[in-house]
Amino acid sequence: MHTNEKIATLRKAMETQGLAAYVVNTADAHQSEYVSDFFKERAWLTGFTGSAGTALVTQDKALVWTDGRYFIQAEQEIAGSDFELMKMATPGYPSVREWLLANLSSGDLVGMNEATLSQKAYEEMSAALDKKGIKLQPLPSLIAPLWQDRPALPSAAIFAHDLEYTGMTASEKIEKMRAKMAEDGADASFIVGLDDVAWLYNYRGGDVAHNPVSLAYALLTEKEAKLFIDLGKVDKNMQNIFHKEGIEVLDYKEAASALSHLKAKKIALDKGLISYQLFKSLPSSVEVLDQTSYVYLTKCCLNPTELACQKAAYKRDSAAITRFLFWLKREVKRQAIDELQAADQLHAWRSQGDKFLEESFGSISAYGPNAAMMHYAPSADHKAQLEAKSFYLIDSGGQYLDGTTDITRTIALGPLSAEEKTDFTLTLKSHIGLASAKFLEGTSGYYLDCLARQPLWQHYMDYKCGTGHGVGYVAGVHEGPQRFSKVYNPLPLQEGMHITIEPGVYKEGKHGIRLENDYVVSFDREFMGDRFLQLEVMSFVPLDRDAIDPSLLTTQEIAWLDQYHQQCYEVLIDQMTTDEERADLKKACAPLL
Amino acid sequence: MHTNEKIATLRKAMETQGLAAYVVNTADAHQSEYVSDFFKERAWLTGFTGSAGTALVTQDKALVWTDGRYFIQAEQEIAGSDFELMKMATPGYPSVREWLLANLSSGDLVGMNEATLSQKAYEEMSAALDKKGIKLQPLPSLIAPLWQDRPALPSAAIFAHDLEYTGMTASEKIEKMRAKMAEDGADASFIVGLDDVAWLYNYRGGDVAHNPVSLAYALLTEKEAKLFIDLGKVDKNMQNIFHKEGIEVLDYKEAASALSHLKAKKIALDKGLISYQLFKSLPSSVEVLDQTSYVYLTKCCLNPTELACQKAAYKRDSAAITRFLFWLKREVKRQAIDELQAADQLHAWRSQGDKFLEESFGSISAYGPNAAMMHYAPSADHKAQLEAKSFYLIDSGGQYLDGTTDITRTIALGPLSAEEKTDFTLTLKSHIGLASAKFLEGTSGYYLDCLARQPLWQHYMDYKCGTGHGVGYVAGVHEGPQRFSKVYNPLPLQEGMHITIEPGVYKEGKHGIRLENDYVVSFDREFMGDRFLQLEVMSFVPLDRDAIDPSLLTTQEIAWLDQYHQQCYEVLIDQMTTDEERADLKKACAPLL
Repeated sequence: MHTNEKIATLRKAMETQGLAAYVVNTADAHQSEYVSDFFKERAWLTGFTGSAGTALVTQDKALVWTDGRYFIQAEQEIAGSDFELMKMATPGYPSVREWLLANLSSGDLVGMNEATLSQKAYEEMSAALDKKGIKLQPLPSLIAPLWQDRPALPSAAIFAHDLEYTGMTASEKIEKMRAKMAEDGADASFIVGLDDVAWLYNYRGGDVAHNPVSLAYALLTEKEAKLFIDLGKVDKNMQNIFHKEGIEVLDYKEAASALSHLKAKKIALDKGLISYQLFKSLPSSVEVLDQTSYVYLTKCCLNPTELACQKAAYKRDSAAITRFLFWLKREVKRQAIDELQAADQLHAWRSQGDKFLEESFGSISAYGPNAAMMHYAPSADHKAQLEAKSFYLIDSGGQYLDGTTDITRTIALGPLSAEEKTDFTLTLKSHIGLASAKFLEGTSGYYLDCLARQPLWQHYMDYKCGTGHGVGYVAGVHEGPQRFSKVYNPLPLQEGMHITIEPGVYKEGKHGIRLENDYVVSFDREFMGDRFLQLEVMSFVPLDRDAIDPSLLTTQEIAWLDQYHQQCYEVLIDQMTTDEERADLKKACAPLL
Repeated sequence: MHTNEKIATLRKAMETQGLAAYVVNTADAHQSEYVSDFFKERAWLTGFTGSAGTALVTQDKALVWTDGRYFIQAEQEIAGSDFELMKMATPGYPSVREWLLANLSSGDLVGMNEATLSQKAYEEMSAALDKKGIKLQPLPSLIAPLWQDRPALPSAAIFAHDLEYTGMTASEKIEKMRAKMAEDGADASFIVGLDDVAWLYNYRGGDVAHNPVSLAYALLTEKEAKLFIDLGKVDKNMQNIFHKEGIEVLDYKEAASALSHLKAKKIALDKGLISYQLFKSLPSSVEVLDQTSYVYLTKCCLNPTELACQKAAYKRDSAAITRFLFWLKREVKRQAIDELQAADQLHAWRSQGDKFLEESFGSISAYGPNAAMMHYAPSADHKAQLEAKSFYLIDSGGQYLDGTTDITRTIALGPLSAEEKTDFTLTLKSHIGLASAKFLEGTSGYYLDCLARQPLWQHYMDYKCGTGHGVGYVAGVHEGPQRFSKVYNPLPLQEGMHITIEPGVYKEGKHGIRLENDYVVSFDREFMGDRFLQLEVMSFVPLDRDAIDPSLLTTQEIAWLDQYHQQCYEVLIDQMTTDEERADLKKACAPLL
C-alpha cells in the first residue's frame, strides 16, 4: 500500500470513530526505546523508519515529528507522500501537543492506541488538551485492522544470565528491591521496563533486535515475586531456575488480572512506562507511588562483577573494531568496498569474539556526506562506495554475555581537506574536554555537558543531540538515568555508571564526524573535604592520527591522547592476529609528536 | 548587653508568647540583600555581622546559620557566646527547617517577625512544619522591645536619575510594564524590591549603605502609578518630577491601606519579596499572580543608554584601581601600610572620580591568610599589616551616577611560593575558561558555570560560592536574575545582562585568591542557523603577571590575556597621571611571553 493510501484508509477509520485526529507514537506496551517489528505502527504508516518519531493524521494533514538525529533521513523517507516533517525542539515547529491545541477545536476527539500510550503521557496530554475542551481518547489501535502483513509477536526463548556475569542471584536482587520498597512504605512494586525485568530475574531474551530482552512484567510483593511472560519462551531449565529463586511464572496476559486482584496498600510503579490499558486494571483502593523503578535506579550502577565483565567485553570488542579499521584503511586502496560490506566485515570479526550474542544496534556505516545523518544506516538500495579520501564513520556495538558495547570511530580513508581535519580535531578536543573531567561527587551529567560543547561552540558549531548516554548491561544500548546532555537532568553521576561520550560535527552534504568512547564513573580522590570522581575509559580503539591537526591541541590534550593510546596498545597488542596488525597498532599508538 | 544576656532576655519574651523557638532572619520588609542598620536584628542578637545569616533560639539552644563565605568570620564573631555555628549547604548540618522538624514537637509554636518574613517563606515554612504539627506564628518583632540603642530608620532624600543615565523616562517605563501586565491579564502590579521601584521611577536614594535605594513600594494599575515612600525624603523638585511623569506620591505607611482598598481583578507581585504583614492586607477577592516583578526581568538587560554609561563608569573605576595597585606594589616596600589604609587609599582615588556616589559595598582589603575569608573586612581592631611578599586581595566597587562596579584583584606584593603562583594561575585559567565562552542563545549561566570550575577541579579545588552574579544599575551590587552558579537556574543569559566572573582559591591559614571581572552578554555571530552570544569585558585592570606561571597556560589562554591587557592599555593610558604610572601600565600590559 502506498503511504497516501494508508493515510486515506486511516482517515476513514477515524471518521467511523468520530476522531478529529489520530496520533501514532513509537512504542510497545513497555515504552521500550526499540520495539519489535510487531509494534512499528508509525513506521508502517509513514514510511519513516527511524527509531524515534510520532505521526499525527487529521482529515487534511499528515505530519510526522522526529528529532535532530533523523531530520535528513525522515525527509528522504517521507518524500513522495503527503506526510510533512515536523522538527522536534526546533524554533518554528510546534510540538504534537501544541499543534493539536492550535489546530483542533473544543469538543474534538484525539485517538491513540491504548496499549502503547503510557499512563503518564495520557494524563499529561489529557490535562493539556482539556484546557481547550479537546479530549484524548485511548482506544484499540486503528492501525491494527489496516496492517495486513503485520509481523507476528516475537517468540524467542529466554536464557539464564549466570552468576559469573550478574554477581547477584535473582533472589538477592529481589530482597534488595524489597528493602527499597519498605523504605517507601510500598508493599508492592510493578516493573514494566523489559530491561528491568530481565536484570531483576537474571535472564535475557531475544524479542527485540539488538536488545536481548523479552516482553514481560514483574510484580513484587513482600512475599511474592511474579514474572509475566509468554510461557512458550520459558523452557524446563528456566522454569527450574525461576522456581529455585522463588519466582512464580505466569502468562504475559495474566498481568492485567493480577493487577486487578492485587491485595496491596501501596504499589510503586512508573506511570511513564505502564500502559493506559494496563494501569486502568489497578483497583482504586491501591495507592500508587509513581516513580522510576527501584531496579532501574539500582542497575545503573554496575556492581563489581558486572563492571569487571563489562570491561572485559570492551577489551575484546575494541580489538575487533581496531582490526577492522586497520583492514579498511589498507583495503580501501586495493579493492571496491561499500558501506554494507564494511559493516559486514566488522560483524564477521566481532561475531567471532568470545561470548558474542548480536550487535547492540544496527551499525551506522557511513561514508562521506552520509555520515552527516547522525543515525544513517546503509541498505541494499542506498549505500555508498568507499573511496580512498575523506571520512568513514562507523558507530556500532555488540551484545555479549558479559556486557554491552557502543563505540564510534571516524577515520580518514585518504587525503583530507583542511576543513575536515579541523572539524575532526575540534571533535577530538570536545571529546577530551569532557573525558578528562574531574568532578565533585553530586555533579550531574548536565552540568558537565558544557565541557564537550565549548570547544565546538568556540567555532560556532553545535551538534543537535546529547553528548552521551548510559548503556545497559547486556540490555539496551541506551539506558539511563545517567546522560550527558544540554537538556536539564539533575541526577548526579555515581560510581559504577557506564556512560558514553560522543560529540560530533555534522555538515549536511559534506561530512559527519563522531568520536565515541565509553566510560565508567569512578572515584578519583578526596581533597580538602571534597570527594572527586572521574571518567575511566573502557573502550580502546586508537583515534586516527591522520585526521588530527596537532597545532589545534593543547599540551594537556596531547598528553591525554598519548596516554589513551598507550592504554590502547597494552590492551590490544596481544589481540592482534598478524604482524601487519601489530605494526599498524604500534604506529597508531605512538606518541602524537 | 553581652550576647548571652540578649539570648536570656529573648527567651523570657518567648516564654511570654508561648513560643518554643524564635527565628531571626536577615531582612527588611523588602527582602533586600543588604539592609539598613535599623533592620539588623540578627546581627544585634548574635554578634555575627556578615550580610547573610539566620538565628534560631530555643530555651536550650542558640544557633546561627550562614553560608560558606562567612564560616570563618562567624566562628570568630560568635566565640564566647552560647551561639553555635550551623554551616549552610554542608553535609552534617541540617537547614533551619530540618532542625525545627527534628527538634520540635507537635503543637510547638515558632515565632518570626511578621514585617520581615516574606509571604513565600511563610507559606513554604508553614507547609513544611505543619506536617509535624508545628505552627509558624508571624508576630511583631520580639527583638524590637529589647533593642535599646536601635538605629533610626534611614531618612536620606532621594534624587532624580536623569534621562542621560536612564535612556527612558519613568512614564515610558511605566507604559512598558503595563504592556507586560496586559499580556498576563493583570490589572495591577505591586512592586516591592527597592531596586525595582527606584529604577521604574527614575530616582535613587541613600537608605542602605552602598545601595542607592530608598524604602518604597510601587503600585501600578492600568491608570495609576503610585509611589509609597517617607514623604520627608521627597523634596519639591522631586515632587514636580514625579507629578510630570504621572506618579502619585504617598506615604510609605499608606501601602497597606492602598492594598486593602485595591479595586483590581488580578495583581502581579512577588510573594518572595512582599512581607507576610503586608500581604495579608490584600482583599481575598483579588487574584494573585505570584512572579518575579516585570521590572526585575526588564532592567536586568541594560538598554543602550545604560550600557554605554555602565561601560564609561567601568573605565573610570578601572583607572582608580589600577593606579591604586601600582601605588601599593611600589609603596609596600617603602612604608608601613595596613589593610585599612590600603582601602582608604583606593577610596581616595575612586571618590575623586567623576560621578562618584559611594562604594558599592564595603571593600574587602585582605592580606595573606585573611583573604581566605571570602568576605573579610578589616576593622580598626582586626587588620593586618601588608608585607612585601605573598598576596594582597582587594574586592571593591563604586556607585556612580552612570553605573555600579564590582571588581577583585589579587596581586603579589613580593616573592610568592610555588603553591601561591600555581593557585593564582589556576584561578586565572578558571576565569578565562568562562570569560572566553561562546554560547548558543538560550544557554543558562548554570550550564556554563562548569567552564570556570573545571580548571580548579582538575587540581581538586572548589570554591564554595557562586562563580558570578548579576550587578544592578546604580543599585544593588548583587542583582539577578542572571548568575553563574552550580545551583541550578534555568534562566538564559540575554544580551545586555551585566554579570561578574569571580572564581577563587581559598586556603584557610594560607591565602585567598580571587580574580573578578565584569562582563556584558553580547551578540557574537550567527552560523548554520545558530545564534551565538559571548561575554564582552567591561572592567580593565591588568592581571598581575608577577603571579602567573606561564607554563600552566595554553596558547589560547595566553592569547586571551594578551588581548585583554592590550584593551586595558588602550582604556587606561590616558587616565594615568604620572610617568611612573604610565611606565607601570606599559609593563603590566605587555605581551606575557
